[in-house]
Amino acid sequence: MTNWKDIDHHAKSWIREAGERIRGSFATSLSIQTKSNPNDLVTNMDKETEQFFISRIKETYPDHRILGEEGYGHEIEDSKGIIWIIDPIDGTMNFVHQQRNFAISIGIYEEGTGMIGLIYDVVHDELYHAFKGEGAFMDDTPLPKLEHREVKEAIIGLNATWVTENKRIDPSVLAPLVRNARGTRSYGSAALEFAYVVSGRLDCYITMRLAPWDFAGGLVLLHEVGGIATTVSGEPISILERNSIFASRPGLHKEILNSYLNKA
Amino acid sequence: MTNWKDIDHHAKSWIREAGERIRGSFATSLSIQTKSNPNDLVTNMDKETEQFFISRIKETYPDHRILGEEGYGHEIEDSKGIIWIIDPIDGTMNFVHQQRNFAISIGIYEEGTGMIGLIYDVVHDELYHAFKGEGAFMDDTPLPKLEHREVKEAIIGLNATWVTENKRIDPSVLAPLVRNARGTRSYGSAALEFAYVVSGRLDCYITMRLAPWDFAGGLVLLHEVGGIATTVSGEPISILERNSIFASRPGLHKEILNSYLNKA
Repeated sequence: MTNWKDIDHHAKSWIREAGERIRGSFATSLSIQTKSNPNDLVTNMDKETEQFFISRIKETYPDHRILGEEGYGHEIEDSKGIIWIIDPIDGTMNFVHQQRNFAISIGIYEEGTGMIGLIYDVVHDELYHAFKGEGAFMDDTPLPKLEHREVKEAIIGLNATWVTENKRIDPSVLAPLVRNARGTRSYGSAALEFAYVVSGRLDCYITMRLAPWDFAGGLVLLHEVGGIATTVSGEPISILERNSIFASRPGLHKEILNSYLNKA
Repeated sequence: MTNWKDIDHHAKSWIREAGERIRGSFATSLSIQTKSNPNDLVTNMDKETEQFFISRIKETYPDHRILGEEGYGHEIEDSKGIIWIIDPIDGTMNFVHQQRNFAISIGIYEEGTGMIGLIYDVVHDELYHAFKGEGAFMDDTPLPKLEHREVKEAIIGLNATWVTENKRIDPSVLAPLVRNARGTRSYGSAALEFAYVVSGRLDCYITMRLAPWDFAGGLVLLHEVGGIATTVSGEPISILERNSIFASRPGLHKEILNSYLNKA
């Protein structure tokens, strides 16, 4: 039988160890590559960190599979068994330009069900963690259940890109939400933006295209505080595919879906 | 003769003391008021912090004048003598919703010339400070001079509001900049956004309306690292009035003014 507490213990220990390595790397110089386009950076630290997790997991749990952003894990086409979904550095652009505002994200799933969610804000040494059915925490602090908040009192995580001409959404869909909300913010790391929704610092987060490693950890955390995540059209999120993401407090989720996203 | 080193010493000591009081307040509950509209919040902590500075300054420097966001200072209509321009909590909405991502901002001016700039990121205990002619620092770390970076490699501090229908700028002016830049961010505290430009974490920051207390400290810091700040049409900033603000690396400032802001 799977010892989930053992997996949880290892995952937390490895994520903190990886964070320490990254903090140490700030003293040395970075080498940077672009991936598919100039906005898609990758550094040696992304790759090293992913390889660190893979070697630890393979050694300790040889039958688990791994889906990682840098592609050193397995080719995964189904959700059978236990799968670790890992973003070694979520927010690489912030990592390169700011040396802050990035996170390590890990979601561990069994037969498609999220069991463990971890988001580690490396520079601030804050670990957001959840174990299915046991609630969510920031370090030792339990995070309260999320309650409804109206749009006019809400702070919304939304990048200016999505209210400007772009390939994924008509800018006029979200523009009224920007006008009606109390404010908008954009931090440039999906994992941190999920962690901010989970901890109530943002009331919701909307983005048009994320990969599984960007949201796998965040979904488990969000579920534990009673938050809701769907695509922007209100469909369920597929954990192994790219999706648009709308993660929110309950109530506010319904209000924004009905009055903005699905109004057209 | 004015002992500026003495003023600098006191200002730093008071800003850290005020920060400690604010951190302490997180244990107790906040009382919140709205100012002119629902997006303009003020808390008892804003008021108490401003009063703390005013009492210290009046006691130590009875001939200095004070311009503060909460209005407990002087009525100021000219830039004569020594003026302290203070925002006790810049980013009140973040203070209320997030208990982070806010700052105390102080600019000290003599006959209209910025002498001392301080921005204190209270939660992260990071003090950005500059003394005219002596460079800018984050705590003990000297901040390097800012160099040019092209738009396509730049991260721009810009809220989604300014590319959505609003009262202050045609959304089509800044939309091409959002499309061409490497990325945009929005943190919801002008003082922190200034500190991010000064420390190179953002390449520029554009916003349509700030009050003197929002930018007085930031302007002194920015000047010390060779950055440039004007209104969005390239005019000089009036230190005692509300202005639009475009703070940037040199070179990039000219590129954005010529190719975006003044193109129309």
